[in-house]
Amino acid sequence: MSSATFTLLLRSHLPEQCVLSHPEDLRPYECDALSAYRNTPLAVVIPETQQQVKTTLQLCSENRVPVVARGAGTGLSGGALPVTDGVLLSMARFNRILEIDTGNRTARVQPGVTNLSISKAAEPYGLYYAPDPSSQIACSIGGNVAENAGGIHCLKYGLTVNNIQHLEVLTVEGEQLTIGSAALDSPGYDLLALMTGSEGLLGVITEVTVKLLPIPATAQVVLAAFDSVEAAGTGVTATIASGIIPAGLELLDNPAIRAVEKFVNAGYPVDAAAILLCEIDGTADEVSAQIEQVSRVFRDAGAIDLQVSRNEAERQRFWAGRKAAFPAMGRLSPDYYCMDGTIPRKHLATVLAEIGRLSSEYDLPICNVFHAGDGNLHPLILYDANQPGELERTEELGGKILEICVAVGGTITGEHGVGMEKINQMCVQFNAAELTQFHAIKQAFDKQQLLNPGKAIPTLHRCAEFGAMHVHEGKLPHPELERF
Amino acid sequence: MSSATFTLLLRSHLPEQCVLSHPEDLRPYECDALSAYRNTPLAVVIPETQQQVKTTLQLCSENRVPVVARGAGTGLSGGALPVTDGVLLSMARFNRILEIDTGNRTARVQPGVTNLSISKAAEPYGLYYAPDPSSQIACSIGGNVAENAGGIHCLKYGLTVNNIQHLEVLTVEGEQLTIGSAALDSPGYDLLALMTGSEGLLGVITEVTVKLLPIPATAQVVLAAFDSVEAAGTGVTATIASGIIPAGLELLDNPAIRAVEKFVNAGYPVDAAAILLCEIDGTADEVSAQIEQVSRVFRDAGAIDLQVSRNEAERQRFWAGRKAAFPAMGRLSPDYYCMDGTIPRKHLATVLAEIGRLSSEYDLPICNVFHAGDGNLHPLILYDANQPGELERTEELGGKILEICVAVGGTITGEHGVGMEKINQMCVQFNAAELTQFHAIKQAFDKQQLLNPGKAIPTLHRCAEFGAMHVHEGKLPHPELERF
Repeated sequence: MSSATFTLLLRSHLPEQCVLSHPEDLRPYECDALSAYRNTPLAVVIPETQQQVKTTLQLCSENRVPVVARGAGTGLSGGALPVTDGVLLSMARFNRILEIDTGNRTARVQPGVTNLSISKAAEPYGLYYAPDPSSQIACSIGGNVAENAGGIHCLKYGLTVNNIQHLEVLTVEGEQLTIGSAALDSPGYDLLALMTGSEGLLGVITEVTVKLLPIPATAQVVLAAFDSVEAAGTGVTATIASGIIPAGLELLDNPAIRAVEKFVNAGYPVDAAAILLCEIDGTADEVSAQIEQVSRVFRDAGAIDLQVSRNEAERQRFWAGRKAAFPAMGRLSPDYYCMDGTIPRKHLATVLAEIGRLSSEYDLPICNVFHAGDGNLHPLILYDANQPGELERTEELGGKILEICVAVGGTITGEHGVGMEKINQMCVQFNAAELTQFHAIKQAFDKQQLLNPGKAIPTLHRCAEFGAMHVHEGKLPHPELERF
Repeated sequence: MSSATFTLLLRSHLPEQCVLSHPEDLRPYECDALSAYRNTPLAVVIPETQQQVKTTLQLCSENRVPVVARGAGTGLSGGALPVTDGVLLSMARFNRILEIDTGNRTARVQPGVTNLSISKAAEPYGLYYAPDPSSQIACSIGGNVAENAGGIHCLKYGLTVNNIQHLEVLTVEGEQLTIGSAALDSPGYDLLALMTGSEGLLGVITEVTVKLLPIPATAQVVLAAFDSVEAAGTGVTATIASGIIPAGLELLDNPAIRAVEKFVNAGYPVDAAAILLCEIDGTADEVSAQIEQVSRVFRDAGAIDLQVSRNEAERQRFWAGRKAAFPAMGRLSPDYYCMDGTIPRKHLATVLAEIGRLSSEYDLPICNVFHAGDGNLHPLILYDANQPGELERTEELGGKILEICVAVGGTITGEHGVGMEKINQMCVQFNAAELTQFHAIKQAFDKQQLLNPGKAIPTLHRCAEFGAMHVHEGKLPHPELERF
């Protein structure tokens, strides 16, 4: 069936306002926040009811037309990049909060609701939703589930997978599945975790029940400056080893500190090699006891300066710098590329040193601003897309950084997903047996390979072409990585 | 191939001491802790190396012989019940702790290691493994992963799935999979969660890396007595609503209190309709602040008596009664049947009342001792297996209790798994589309259906025979359950 005929078929089954197919209407859906990749879909469907989602999936399924689901399009790995011969299914109109259940401390919401609006709706009851990606004002909860999104507070409160309880999902054939339950555990295989982070490859989420937590009584931040990145890394591991789980523990290196201070006056020490921002939340007693303990740990690790927020305004100011870090990069460079890999905390200092070495080798500046407490790196590579070859060099450098993460026993993603961006690095992370098992699971949900095709899990053929550099914990066939 | 020929084949590939096939050697493996079901396997294999597990699986796979893996055999749902034409694969000799990594706070262990021995090995470093099933002195960590085991402390610290980080698994074809990573998140589908609680249907676990936590500085228990089960239920929901997550929150009803007090002198008030045991752990400041807060919550809920443990000996005494509850049942009745269902906390009082009504209807006494904080019920049905028909009546009553759990939005298992025991109730919990999806996942791992066949996920045919009473949240076609 031609694209035009299929579009007519969609129009004959769905209301006028639910189907877009004119080129100018399709343009906004060409990419998500990984805008280096762009495709025009054959049509965009924006359903308003569960039945319309079902109809769309059934039509696609029967006619073997690929479907890419999209939340708010804020994803950084290209998970919502359309395919040219497929439908882009926008869940933007599923934007209602259906129920706040204070007794069970849950919120039942539609997938297009933004992350932040859940916390806003829960606030009158003294509750909030803990995972807080930087994009929380815009990103949708459905997208958060699809990518297993994280955020500053996930160190203490867990990722999306730890904060949801129940999903309504449509399979690619339009069959409805109820996944999870109101209980801690659920019999049968753990489809709730399997669906979370599956990047739109297994089904379309039509409803999410999230867990809510009581808003902490109070919170304070310690800002600690160090004269070496190594000492800051020691501060991170020593904090966790001391038994404290901070509500957030972030690291900024010197290039990031300087960029941020030029942009917002957060009061960061511009000569420090690195700073740590450590937030403690809880009751007033707990917070003051742990702030004291963390300050001691940081001093023992060699902190050269310590500031503790004295009031809410100061706490906000300390965070303002961290939050402005990404926009601040715009002052330094026309473009930047945000990487996302995770490593065991104990390797922080060596990996940051290696990233510095690669930065010199590729002659591309790198700023580091990241979730140090859980070892989730976000190196920001600064480049200029108008310089011929610079994007390609940036991508190559980014790939190298991810391979270092794998070499030290970490992973190629912390919270942004694999999508299109890191599909080659999946060949580094997993061996053929593991990738084959992933494909078998895909097959169990989507025999025709229609949901978000070509993303997240590479074919073995692709890995062979890429060089299939599979490693586990240090056995990478790259001589320069041997020492990890 | 005959059973005898296949046993010869096993013997030709494995050392003498690894294969048992004489009838008297097979007897101890006929059942796990659900001893009402018994089967003699064709042979028992007790491998000592990963290669021997691999060989066993390859031989079974090539010859289409079923395999049931077994840890310590302490499971209560028949998950390790052998099949008569299959191999029972005992992982008992995989009993080494391979590494305690204090920096990353993990322990890498073989699957046959007991739950408690991990905490013992970690103790010198001030660390422990949090999930604590009642059988922790005997049960193996491999079995804990297979069943997603819980325990008293899982309310605060999560189930097994929340406390493991990394698995080595062999597929039924003997292919090795490395699952999970040292990082918080891992790319690809979440096989770590999928494997956890999959009851031996997807693969054989050969190594587990668990997370360790710092041993809390101190702990105290509040023992609160109530003159109605309803008031105790209110105490539970009000505690959680107040924002406190106790380290444990257990309920005993009057029959359980009386049984326990006759057996050990724990100092429980024998006239109370119910007691709550609430443990708080953490730093001394935290504990004293929260003990005060919980006491206030319990008083507001109508507690008629409150005792707070004044020292470690008293804390141990308060718990001694709870821990002796199961053995104490032996004083009351020749046999008992321990159920395991989970409900949303807010329904505690109504469900306990309904269980009381069913107890009268079936003329079988029931004691309730359970993890109230997470709504995980453990009704103990007292019966006499020597009275004709009494086991059957007990099983029918147990099935009714599980259906009530589903009817109020809960599940048929909290921590014991489905196994053989609850396979019919899976038809109540899930609809045909959901069961079909489960079977597709099984297919993705085990095409020939050789791993632990006939357990955990019922065929649609079986559900049709059982009456396929699928419900979701109160729409059960049983008139007597309509009011939930």
